[in-house]
Amino acid sequence: MSPDELALLEATFWSGGVARHALADTLQFSRSKTNALTAGLLDQGLLDEAGAQHSTGGRRPETLKVHGRIGVLFGVDIGATSLDVALLRPDLTIIARHSQEADVQAGPGPIMARLRSLLPAMLAQNGIAPDRVLAVGIGVPGPVNFAVGQLVNPPLMPGWDSYAIRDDMREITDAPVFVDNDVNLMALGVLWRQRKQIDNFLVIKVGTGIGCGIVCHGELYRGATGSAGDIGHICADPEGPLCRCGNRGCVEAMAAAPAIVAMGVDAAQSGRSPALAAKLAEKGRVEASDVGAACRAGDAEADAIVRRSGRLIGQVLAALVNFYNPSHIFIGGGVSAIGPMFLAAIRQSVNQRSLALSTRHLEITAAPLGSETGLIGAGVLAMREALRSGSPA
Amino acid sequence: MSPDELALLEATFWSGGVARHALADTLQFSRSKTNALTAGLLDQGLLDEAGAQHSTGGRRPETLKVHGRIGVLFGVDIGATSLDVALLRPDLTIIARHSQEADVQAGPGPIMARLRSLLPAMLAQNGIAPDRVLAVGIGVPGPVNFAVGQLVNPPLMPGWDSYAIRDDMREITDAPVFVDNDVNLMALGVLWRQRKQIDNFLVIKVGTGIGCGIVCHGELYRGATGSAGDIGHICADPEGPLCRCGNRGCVEAMAAAPAIVAMGVDAAQSGRSPALAAKLAEKGRVEASDVGAACRAGDAEADAIVRRSGRLIGQVLAALVNFYNPSHIFIGGGVSAIGPMFLAAIRQSVNQRSLALSTRHLEITAAPLGSETGLIGAGVLAMREALRSGSPA
Repeated sequence: MSPDELALLEATFWSGGVARHALADTLQFSRSKTNALTAGLLDQGLLDEAGAQHSTGGRRPETLKVHGRIGVLFGVDIGATSLDVALLRPDLTIIARHSQEADVQAGPGPIMARLRSLLPAMLAQNGIAPDRVLAVGIGVPGPVNFAVGQLVNPPLMPGWDSYAIRDDMREITDAPVFVDNDVNLMALGVLWRQRKQIDNFLVIKVGTGIGCGIVCHGELYRGATGSAGDIGHICADPEGPLCRCGNRGCVEAMAAAPAIVAMGVDAAQSGRSPALAAKLAEKGRVEASDVGAACRAGDAEADAIVRRSGRLIGQVLAALVNFYNPSHIFIGGGVSAIGPMFLAAIRQSVNQRSLALSTRHLEITAAPLGSETGLIGAGVLAMREALRSGSPA
Repeated sequence: MSPDELALLEATFWSGGVARHALADTLQFSRSKTNALTAGLLDQGLLDEAGAQHSTGGRRPETLKVHGRIGVLFGVDIGATSLDVALLRPDLTIIARHSQEADVQAGPGPIMARLRSLLPAMLAQNGIAPDRVLAVGIGVPGPVNFAVGQLVNPPLMPGWDSYAIRDDMREITDAPVFVDNDVNLMALGVLWRQRKQIDNFLVIKVGTGIGCGIVCHGELYRGATGSAGDIGHICADPEGPLCRCGNRGCVEAMAAAPAIVAMGVDAAQSGRSPALAAKLAEKGRVEASDVGAACRAGDAEADAIVRRSGRLIGQVLAALVNFYNPSHIFIGGGVSAIGPMFLAAIRQSVNQRSLALSTRHLEITAAPLGSETGLIGAGVLAMREALRSGSPA
């Protein structure tokens, strides 16, 4: 495939469906060149003409999409406590999805074994031949050397250090496999969802840990050695508790899910929160989502826990807003499901501590694809890298 | 001029002197295309062949430079307390330089009046006709709307808000004028000095205020609304003194020149520092450079002041290092001239609070062009924008 054809295919993918004239504008190709390239790709079965777009008159422009026939993608989101897998069409609609609890702390063995049975089963259940898999994108909750697809000193994933996920996946599929940090994939997911219309933004994941995906000049930014966005150990309170990293008051140690759970258990055991005490008696434990539910139901202690977590995260984000001046911050991850009080506390804290010039046009909202942001991002990575390597040709 | 010719001219400018084959590699042009373009630009007098480069054999490649005949540039660095102007050749060597104290707080009137007499005088003194000025680059110590060349709510520059520097400069010169934040220009200066060989770095200016220039993917990053790098009001100590911005413990209020001076005066008046007491008696005041000199001479109080300032700045940088993962941080501005103890304190504080993965390859050094970094950066801005607008054609 020619570079121009690949560029057109990639632009079509990012657009999520586009008319020829809009493609020509995006790529700065002439109309005739765009028409000729499009015709060729339609002939090869790589592009598909889907329905007609609304138009203000004249000939109705057809919407171009990447053809479903090109193949399918796997998006895999390995979380600290969960495993999510999606089988996706090239337009990132979901054919099938599987979610389960999983413990990354147990090392790569159990999770890789699960993938070994799961991926072929998902293909078989949907009548898709294994050779139709175009690429696999995998997100992991730790720093990744993207070029070689290996984890580097992942604090939440002992046993995965320098583990070659990509090599091990060769036993499962012949398709190319791409591995990246989970928050980077969330940022890619949002970038795709926003059709690349915003250039400079952050995606924050608040779950077992706290991480940040950075988009700069419309591209994912990984930093000089791939660890950009590793914000969990930024200091939120110099007098705070000792973190396992050796420093005091890291935002992750004070505001992520384990801290919320610890505060919730304390509120339950001390009797300060009747709602959480009831939950603890019922389940034998308290989860971050229980604190969220109690907060929404009006429990004052749960409300204070949620506000405290949001305020601490907002303090760290305030510094990053002054430094980075993003147009948007998208908040995702399990803890973000706690609800609007959590987002409100983050917003209030950012606005209080950031410069007016940086916050005047800043939007802080929930990640647009919700709990699927990381999975869709894994699909974006798979599709983009497959296109860039010329795989569909 | 064709886009290819402009690209070749710009690449030659950034290289600081380059052989044809290296240009071909940089631009991904064929050798024959590069030779043809070069020949054309040599004929037009836009390129110059300067001496022979060392070579390992065969025909000795000539070093190409942008021709001095193209014109001259003005670099203007308006500081909080100083005015620096340089008349520059297209290769950014300095023809003439003028430095004086100046007070931006007095508003634009006096400084613009000074430029009105200074620029023509510098041209006349060097026998250069006014129409040979290709472009003017101006750095200011405040947030700038780059597209229109206006200051936006500059805290250190009351009276300059929305002031159209560029329009006012039309009375002084017919050449195009480009205005940017002073720290952004320092980042451009470093990017040029490093020949674009490093892609992701920060430049920190510590003077009356504290600011940061950000280079991302090899390009200056201004943020969503142009205020990126505005790090002076990031919190260094939640229990710190009240800042004029309304928050507590901003790093600028605790560690920039005025804070160092205040601590120096206190150390002098209390008698804790004999060296600074002598300086205060002699001059009637203490400057940041006096604290630096006393520190270097072994005064324990001055040493503690310098270390404290470095430690606070390092705490803020530690957060930014975790977030941004730069390969280099360059420290410039008046306070950085205090000496190696200041840099050492910053380094120690960053290494203590940042993740090992982010600091393993991180270099923290003095800005490579010293006190000229901002001036040279203003020249880079002028030259780059002149080239992009096709002015030399």
